[in-house]
Amino acid sequence: MAGCARGSARAVLAFLLAPALVALLVAPARGRGGRGHGDWGAAELLPPRENAALVARFVTNVCDWGALATISTQEGVRGRPFADVLSLSDGPPAKGSGVPYFYLSPMQQSVGNLKENPYATLTMSLAETSFCRKYGFDPQSPLCAHIILSGTVIKVSEAEMDVARNSLFIRHPEMKTWPSSHNWFFAKLNITNIWVLDYFGGPKIVTPEEYYNATFQ
Amino acid sequence: MAGCARGSARAVLAFLLAPALVALLVAPARGRGGRGHGDWGAAELLPPRENAALVARFVTNVCDWGALATISTQEGVRGRPFADVLSLSDGPPAKGSGVPYFYLSPMQQSVGNLKENPYATLTMSLAETSFCRKYGFDPQSPLCAHIILSGTVIKVSEAEMDVARNSLFIRHPEMKTWPSSHNWFFAKLNITNIWVLDYFGGPKIVTPEEYYNATFQ
Repeated sequence: MAGCARGSARAVLAFLLAPALVALLVAPARGRGGRGHGDWGAAELLPPRENAALVARFVTNVCDWGALATISTQEGVRGRPFADVLSLSDGPPAKGSGVPYFYLSPMQQSVGNLKENPYATLTMSLAETSFCRKYGFDPQSPLCAHIILSGTVIKVSEAEMDVARNSLFIRHPEMKTWPSSHNWFFAKLNITNIWVLDYFGGPKIVTPEEYYNATFQ
Repeated sequence: MAGCARGSARAVLAFLLAPALVALLVAPARGRGGRGHGDWGAAELLPPRENAALVARFVTNVCDWGALATISTQEGVRGRPFADVLSLSDGPPAKGSGVPYFYLSPMQQSVGNLKENPYATLTMSLAETSFCRKYGFDPQSPLCAHIILSGTVIKVSEAEMDVARNSLFIRHPEMKTWPSSHNWFFAKLNITNIWVLDYFGGPKIVTPEEYYNATFQ
């Protein structure tokens, strides 16, 4: 089952999505959790599914948290795969750089793991937003697009500090209040491998070059 | 910062949550994605945070997907941690067994990994529901409760097949339509370690015994 329908299917899609977008725009944004916490509030549409690099950039930008896999250093589970939830941001909604930034503390289990082994895989899914529920896509259906980014988690350099801080604090204003006793630092995922599951036919491989070169219209 | 306030704080919490629950109950359930896809529709309240075992059971039951960490067998990333999104269910809303069941295919990357190394860690977060957004909790805040379950992923035995099937198909009706050519099979996480992050003070350790003995009132 390769590729996706185009042309008339896109017209049908636009027709179907129009009322959804109107409903989204009029629905009040509740909660005090900051911007972009899974709200489909912006007029963003999923890019054409065949443009896997752009879909990957879209998912990274729309999601503001993900699950990170690391190798465990904890007693009893040493060497085994470990998973944890981390907030993240690649920038403001619709203006993401594609770089997933994190705000980490040495007190976190994942950070203890990364200290010994910086390899990690981050996964993010549109199931984190209202998209999948709205269109009736099961979280494990490829239509409920999700991406997998492998690489290493590294501290952000001095030069990149401001970008990281701005990207994160815009989407996660609560971070500004987190206690300094936790020794928070900015980190990012240095991406080496990308898989995109957004349609039937199996995961699509996207290179970091394709990923960073993708631009939203 | 140990423990949680009780008594009068609980009364305040009930007062604060009441209008939220009313709002949730009157909001129409949209989408065709099946029951429990992140909707906070049921009258469930987060159990008292100090009852970590019950909080863990709650999160497992309310969530219908999670991220699974495995050790990668894929070319170029062999031996490194891998993360993927999987649908899951421990039973109907408010009637969960605590056992996370999966519906897997040998075609999935994670399943290829598990074939060589069955160790895995599953993480689930209330960020998957409207809970955290509603109360303004950042996804990385412990108040946006999340849990980490380590163990091994194994095929479900004949005796457990019906329970697995019912648990999954109730929450994920779309699964009934997935193509048999994918050789779907029922699996579960055999839990050995549990960490609960639901309050300040670091992760709470819950034993599988405590977890399975916890009962909803």
